[in-house]
Amino acid sequence: METVMEQGSQRRHHVVVVGAGFGGLFATKALRKAPVDVTLINATTYHLFQPLLYQVATGILSQGEIAPPIREVLKRQDNVDVRLGTVTGIDVAARTVSVDAPGLDYTVGYDTLIVAAGASQSYFGNDQFADFAPGMKSIDDALELRARIFGAFELADLQTDPEAIERYLTFVVVGAGPTGVEMAGQIAELAHRTLPGQYKHIDPRKARILLVDALPAVLNTFGDHLSTRALRQLHLLGVEVELETRVVGVDATGIEVETKRGHQRIPSMTKMWAAGVSAPPLARKLGEAAGVETDRAGRVHVNPDCSLPGHPEIFAVGDMMALDETPGQQLPGVAQVAIQSGQYAAGQVRRRLAGQPAGKPFKYFDKGSLATISRFSAVASIGKLRLSGFVGWTIWLVVHLLYLVGFKNRVSAVMHWAVSFLGRGRSERVSTFQQAFARSAVRAYGDPWERGRADDRS
Amino acid sequence: METVMEQGSQRRHHVVVVGAGFGGLFATKALRKAPVDVTLINATTYHLFQPLLYQVATGILSQGEIAPPIREVLKRQDNVDVRLGTVTGIDVAARTVSVDAPGLDYTVGYDTLIVAAGASQSYFGNDQFADFAPGMKSIDDALELRARIFGAFELADLQTDPEAIERYLTFVVVGAGPTGVEMAGQIAELAHRTLPGQYKHIDPRKARILLVDALPAVLNTFGDHLSTRALRQLHLLGVEVELETRVVGVDATGIEVETKRGHQRIPSMTKMWAAGVSAPPLARKLGEAAGVETDRAGRVHVNPDCSLPGHPEIFAVGDMMALDETPGQQLPGVAQVAIQSGQYAAGQVRRRLAGQPAGKPFKYFDKGSLATISRFSAVASIGKLRLSGFVGWTIWLVVHLLYLVGFKNRVSAVMHWAVSFLGRGRSERVSTFQQAFARSAVRAYGDPWERGRADDRS
Repeated sequence: METVMEQGSQRRHHVVVVGAGFGGLFATKALRKAPVDVTLINATTYHLFQPLLYQVATGILSQGEIAPPIREVLKRQDNVDVRLGTVTGIDVAARTVSVDAPGLDYTVGYDTLIVAAGASQSYFGNDQFADFAPGMKSIDDALELRARIFGAFELADLQTDPEAIERYLTFVVVGAGPTGVEMAGQIAELAHRTLPGQYKHIDPRKARILLVDALPAVLNTFGDHLSTRALRQLHLLGVEVELETRVVGVDATGIEVETKRGHQRIPSMTKMWAAGVSAPPLARKLGEAAGVETDRAGRVHVNPDCSLPGHPEIFAVGDMMALDETPGQQLPGVAQVAIQSGQYAAGQVRRRLAGQPAGKPFKYFDKGSLATISRFSAVASIGKLRLSGFVGWTIWLVVHLLYLVGFKNRVSAVMHWAVSFLGRGRSERVSTFQQAFARSAVRAYGDPWERGRADDRS
Repeated sequence: METVMEQGSQRRHHVVVVGAGFGGLFATKALRKAPVDVTLINATTYHLFQPLLYQVATGILSQGEIAPPIREVLKRQDNVDVRLGTVTGIDVAARTVSVDAPGLDYTVGYDTLIVAAGASQSYFGNDQFADFAPGMKSIDDALELRARIFGAFELADLQTDPEAIERYLTFVVVGAGPTGVEMAGQIAELAHRTLPGQYKHIDPRKARILLVDALPAVLNTFGDHLSTRALRQLHLLGVEVELETRVVGVDATGIEVETKRGHQRIPSMTKMWAAGVSAPPLARKLGEAAGVETDRAGRVHVNPDCSLPGHPEIFAVGDMMALDETPGQQLPGVAQVAIQSGQYAAGQVRRRLAGQPAGKPFKYFDKGSLATISRFSAVASIGKLRLSGFVGWTIWLVVHLLYLVGFKNRVSAVMHWAVSFLGRGRSERVSTFQQAFARSAVRAYGDPWERGRADDRS
């Protein structure tokens, strides 16, 4: 009896996981049967299935379908404590992280720390663009873009000045990676399939959708063959693709670009940014605290086992780690890298606690790349296979269903996909007043977390 | 050939409908085959199925499921022009309405005007309560409440002070009409069925849910029998019902009430207001413009045919009309009154244009009242029938499915109801940063429409 109590009260190895994106969530799940207590800290209450954000922005899915509550996802895992908050600092000597939540600050001690804080949108030093061209990184971003996209058609219909109508019906997507290609494709489908016939004064089919990139190819990382296929498919959809075009200015009513032909202004009310990512502020803080360098994108250099040099008890995984597997070559910022490195770090923790020697260095297994262009058409690069069209799209569908977390989300998503892909409708077109104007409001208002704290003390 | 052209260019009778709630939408639909052009003006792009807002607030349905785009609902009706904007003024002499939309103001002329601007939340002169106890009138309200309700459990789990935990786990619903009863019931189901087992530091079942009303009965308009049944059901769910209790103060951390036993402060972070409605500002403007009196609740007095005294070309319908059918007795502010009066006004327009004499005065046909208390349990008052429990709930389900606009919304809602009523889950628990703090942000920021205009001019 006494032994049991002693065992019960014995402190178990404590793993703190920062971030419940793909890296943090899969690290946590991989620790389910390990003799550890896990504290998972995340700035929101949900895990976000980022690859489908563009479908929330274009009215296909609801936010709930791509963002299950973390507590719901992990409700059968007894050894995890889910905590809301933004990690603002790491004390590597005291082995604590400090956390900022509405209403209070708190600290959490760790034996092992797995940092998986993801990536932020990068405007390449032009953060002022963000107000006019929201990124595609959060539910807030997606709902704001939803409001702007559907709002643009609505407001175009009210205008009488042809130039104003054109400005409202010109959509510019910056960045021709998978997210940008998918956004442009879905806006084209909205304009050509969903919305025609619903307006008295405009023809939605006259909308211009521009996809702009500084590189000479769309889906640059997919290789020449698929890049060419994707470009052709985008043209068929009516998307104008402007390559080798650099964005030098974004404001409320347009965008400024530099092309080979010189400088040009494109009048447009609706711009969106899918062009670049950078590591979050926490990566720099972690690097400074642990005395480890960060690379140009702000990512933390890690050992081959994803731990920090000089700090075997700290791992950085996913988008925020810089791991020079092949010198000069960085891992792509995709869900699979985060999932695999998160699981790998958890495996290292398990081995250490079991007294086993460190395993092999982390090796990313490239399962392939996927991007949809329109319904029934996608490009897929799997090993040496290059697939496009309907076959590519079927693979896209199966893979996304497999990884979409939770049974309910899958059923619900499949139903909404049927509505959108087989029919013409979009079930989720609603936005709030505040979404249409939120960015400006929050800017005027200051940090919402700060506000929460002030309220609580009053 | 010439005749056809003349007919084509001949100006048809122009009906302007203000508001796309139940009154305006059903008036518009009833004009589908009339020889008129209809302009339907609404401040949002969607028709809102208000009776289910509480399900959006408590995570059962997505906002898209109860708010189909007006254009989508009316896409098969050729004679209607849907326009976004808030009607800010009516010139009865010039027969024009002035409209305020993001980016521009415009005016629309009418031959017949049907005003169906609904009702606003009333805080009985205490508008400062609104920041701390959001109402239940819009999608913005529902999503903000969703953020506050789920956020309260999340933040309670972080607290160490027992008083703070209790403050976060105390939910106060003001107003024991159908909306208040349904909210309180659903929060109780969240606390007892959905959330237990998902927190390490709190037991969600310890949440206190208070339902407060100044009147001596819940569901006052349903009669003694159903009121008693509902009260018993609420007690079984663990809801504390405080009747004959008047709210005299609401702030960030609690609520002040006057009861028979005296003054009391209830510490609570999460309050919601379902206590009263008043006519929107447009009702007063309409009354002033047409020289017609408004009643104490701000509603416009109308003739027995829903037209304004002295202005047969103007109708007011739904929540904003004061129609003393039986002297001293007002019509209830429910969807059926709005639907029937909207359809009646449209019928009057059709009769006039056909040269027929005015029909019989508007007579509200009471199809009955319904309120759910929890899953599988509702009360229904239909004619002389008084039904409760599972039978009442089945009627509730059928009626809501019949009136839920659009096939897709119905399929989607049924699926989410199955998840929530048969299982324990809530599919739509997500909220954004901005939703949790939006009211304060917008207050700091000013009127979003104004901001839209400023942006556009920049």
